[in-house]
Amino acid sequence: MVSANITSILSTLVTANHILHYHSVLDAYGHISVRNPENASTFFLARSLAPALVSSAEDINELNIVDASHTDTNRPRSFVERFIHSEIYKRFDNVNSVVHSHSPQVLPYTITDVPLKATYHMPGFLGDQGVPNFDIAEFYEPGDDQDLLVSNTRLGAALASTFNVNSTNSFPDPPAVLMRGHGLAVAGQSIEQAVFFSMYTHSNAEIQSSAIELQHTFSNTGERSGVQYLTAQEGRDAWATNKPLIVRPWELWHREVQTMGQGLYVNELEQ
Amino acid sequence: MVSANITSILSTLVTANHILHYHSVLDAYGHISVRNPENASTFFLARSLAPALVSSAEDINELNIVDASHTDTNRPRSFVERFIHSEIYKRFDNVNSVVHSHSPQVLPYTITDVPLKATYHMPGFLGDQGVPNFDIAEFYEPGDDQDLLVSNTRLGAALASTFNVNSTNSFPDPPAVLMRGHGLAVAGQSIEQAVFFSMYTHSNAEIQSSAIELQHTFSNTGERSGVQYLTAQEGRDAWATNKPLIVRPWELWHREVQTMGQGLYVNELEQ
Amino acid sequence: MVSANITSILSTLVTANHILHYHSVLDAYGHISVRNPENASTFFLARSLAPALVSSAEDINELNIVDASHTDTNRPRSFVERFIHSEIYKRFDNVNSVVHSHSPQVLPYTITDVPLKATYHMPGFLGDQGVPNFDIAEFYEPGDDQDLLVSNTRLGAALASTFNVNSTNSFPDPPAVLMRGHGLAVAGQSIEQAVFFSMYTHSNAEIQSSAIELQHTFSNTGERSGVQYLTAQEGRDAWATNKPLIVRPWELWHREVQTMGQGLYVNELEQ
Amino acid sequence: MVSANITSILSTLVTANHILHYHSVLDAYGHISVRNPENASTFFLARSLAPALVSSAEDINELNIVDASHTDTNRPRSFVERFIHSEIYKRFDNVNSVVHSHSPQVLPYTITDVPLKATYHMPGFLGDQGVPNFDIAEFYEPGDDQDLLVSNTRLGAALASTFNVNSTNSFPDPPAVLMRGHGLAVAGQSIEQAVFFSMYTHSNAEIQSSAIELQHTFSNTGERSGVQYLTAQEGRDAWATNKPLIVRPWELWHREVQTMGQGLYVNELEQ
Repeated sequence: MVSANITSILSTLVTANHILHYHSVLDAYGHISVRNPENASTFFLARSLAPALVSSAEDINELNIVDASHTDTNRPRSFVERFIHSEIYKRFDNVNSVVHSHSPQVLPYTITDVPLKATYHMPGFLGDQGVPNFDIAEFYEPGDDQDLLVSNTRLGAALASTFNVNSTNSFPDPPAVLMRGHGLAVAGQSIEQAVFFSMYTHSNAEIQSSAIELQHTFSNTGERSGVQYLTAQEGRDAWATNKPLIVRPWELWHREVQTMGQGLYVNELEQ
Repeated sequence: MVSANITSILSTLVTANHILHYHSVLDAYGHISVRNPENASTFFLARSLAPALVSSAEDINELNIVDASHTDTNRPRSFVERFIHSEIYKRFDNVNSVVHSHSPQVLPYTITDVPLKATYHMPGFLGDQGVPNFDIAEFYEPGDDQDLLVSNTRLGAALASTFNVNSTNSFPDPPAVLMRGHGLAVAGQSIEQAVFFSMYTHSNAEIQSSAIELQHTFSNTGERSGVQYLTAQEGRDAWATNKPLIVRPWELWHREVQTMGQGLYVNELEQ
Repeated sequence: MVSANITSILSTLVTANHILHYHSVLDAYGHISVRNPENASTFFLARSLAPALVSSAEDINELNIVDASHTDTNRPRSFVERFIHSEIYKRFDNVNSVVHSHSPQVLPYTITDVPLKATYHMPGFLGDQGVPNFDIAEFYEPGDDQDLLVSNTRLGAALASTFNVNSTNSFPDPPAVLMRGHGLAVAGQSIEQAVFFSMYTHSNAEIQSSAIELQHTFSNTGERSGVQYLTAQEGRDAWATNKPLIVRPWELWHREVQTMGQGLYVNELEQ
Repeated sequence: MVSANITSILSTLVTANHILHYHSVLDAYGHISVRNPENASTFFLARSLAPALVSSAEDINELNIVDASHTDTNRPRSFVERFIHSEIYKRFDNVNSVVHSHSPQVLPYTITDVPLKATYHMPGFLGDQGVPNFDIAEFYEPGDDQDLLVSNTRLGAALASTFNVNSTNSFPDPPAVLMRGHGLAVAGQSIEQAVFFSMYTHSNAEIQSSAIELQHTFSNTGERSGVQYLTAQEGRDAWATNKPLIVRPWELWHREVQTMGQGLYVNELEQ
């Protein structure tokens, strides 16, 4: 019933869930999805389950991009925030995977006015303009629950429209949007790329915070200068170089969750 | 002799001890209790033992809420600070579980004048008014040991009265009180809820500290502004949404201590 | 040849080495010793070996307190810095165990002018006056290697004399001395106590640094105030309460190194 | 075909890869090489693979120092940045091992104007003058990819020339160079020494950042003083003492990756 191609991509999705948990990008919450490679109008997303525990095809639903509805309404339902995924796929043809996380390293950038920018070459994809910050409060309507969740198509579309676009409308640049008081959303052309972007956005935030605190307490000048970020061209060129090479970290991360999980991470699709 | 219901709740209590240790909310000290579901005037609390090592019904005592006395005086005794638990149960009818911890992330908020407030939706329950801080020194009487421990009914009652109440007197809002130079106390309607509150108070403190240090060293303005907290309504609405969903993290945390403990965490009640 | 009493204390010493490594108080360097309970003029200290790898009586030497010489000169030699231990034992009759570490949490306090003081009740033993800081440079003589090591009796005695004494000369108060650009030395009445002091000095340093950075970036007033430390009496009373109870953390720490080490920690004396 | 001597050094190289990953000096990227002990004009470096996964002689290439070309062009190729290694070997006769890492602790020092200096005796080799910072932008030529990678002989030579030399031209002092927005390069006379330098540069950066943030937020004076670094002589003497003793940490680190890896770290050359 399910093609080998789909089984393979679901297995990769299970592994991606485990990787993002192992590296503390996700905790008990957050999710990663992938667009259906055989039907561009649907995507796959786990049922409402902690990422570390996603382990089989039974744990994954197919959803319609048009309205984030379930193609099979008899299965246990996916996350309330599935609209984050559906609306990003709707807006960007070349996005094939989406991560939503509450990374503790990134969260401070969602509630301060410090722009998150590329500090080194691995997260060069973040660029030099600051990652956009989506404040859901600007989109509340009277009577809305103000629980900060992206729980319908309207809020999902507002989030998706916060991504910057560059020369093309098919993929965002940078591939991330902060979410005020909540976390972030990251887009990739593949699962591996969305995981790579998520991991190095997390890493960049940690290094940038250390650099700012180090530089500003050291110089204590009150000037908003001192930390030297990558230039726009450096960020662009670094990502162009890294892009074809992301199989290298994926191979490590995959192996880590296979060996280090002590039975926590189960991927039945790898058998 | 012991009902299946009680065995089940004691098993959950053992697991909660392990979870709070695994996530460094508790170290060798601290404790979690649960109100007796079959007798609202008693509660269950481990004997004086490091939380990671609590493993069987033999390790758990039943205590009277009225004075934190042991119902069975022949068993190894519980913690000196059992009055934290008894007095919170006495004051709040809807509190069914209490955690006391020395979280290193939260401790700085007990000895500074920085109010601990909700920075993102998961700890929305913390609200926007700052978690109250109980300074035991205000309640010392002549001749008291000034060891900061809540070691009698009087001090327990003083701590319990530091919790804020909102529309009702049956449950505190927020469900936490800081303890100056000591740690914090957290209340829940269930074990799972008390663990959830403890975990996300810990997480919020870490993120809030990062945000303040980032924002204030970056802007270096000397103004007490810059970090954007959740509004009162956002915190309230976020918790209302999260409340029915806390089975999701519990399921993960339970699985973690079952798989990752390498024999450290033993729960004989799960056999 | 070796009494059961000595075997037991050497086993405890092996476990203490493992505990201090497991909790990152020691890395590949640092050491813990114990006074010979059957001969107050000698003490036991590992041969020059990373603490995690100390595993048998063969790894432990007996040394003379008078000059840190080896009682058996045919065995592999102990650390260059054995004079830290010998001179502290020489000065304080009631010191029965000494730890020397390079704790990364404590090191910043050795090279700044921020006094290390008790922030909460567990490290109440640190008191409210600031832990003394030994600067070896004050004791260099012409021709000395300036490698910061306490490598002879003269430097060991200088270090030992830096400890504060209180009402009595038999035990230092607080039980720790910082070592500028190097680490710290900690004294205990027993191995368990020296480990307890080392662990909670480490913890206090981490919490104090967080509190100072939080408070001072938040208020940004330039005033040296804001963090509220324990009073002298609170520190004293807290330690008096904790002192008889340190078997509780020891039991946990012992179990951790027995279960979590995956074969790294071997204690042949426990067989 | 391969001598026992070479097999032994390749085994050590595999172990070094694992150690640097286990201690988070390397993540999925970065590399360590060793000069061929039987042919000073070539060196050994893994194929393009995450360090944790390097496990056999098949994973390691021999390269020519003159131009970083592969001696066997039929094997899977090594890293784009192999010129970091070749040019450092070319410039310094006594360098026999090179590490390139993206240490998150060190990275902030590459993008701020805070000089990285020795804060304690273990990293005394860093000295008191600040580790030089290589900014590749000064060496870009028109048409160059500005991806920050050291991807040819010209850029490798520019990096190698950034190392300081002292009394002799055969080994750099300090043995490290920062790389702006990228990471660092570290040289050793042996694999063990290069690993030691990498580990304690990482440790020093963490401690120095903590000390600066602690001191400068505490005193808040705006003066660039307060942290007390090692003097030049102290750094020099400390390294002279530590140099013959680095077998002690190596023995620990080797054992850690043998026991703690749960199957992640495989060294087929140790069988």
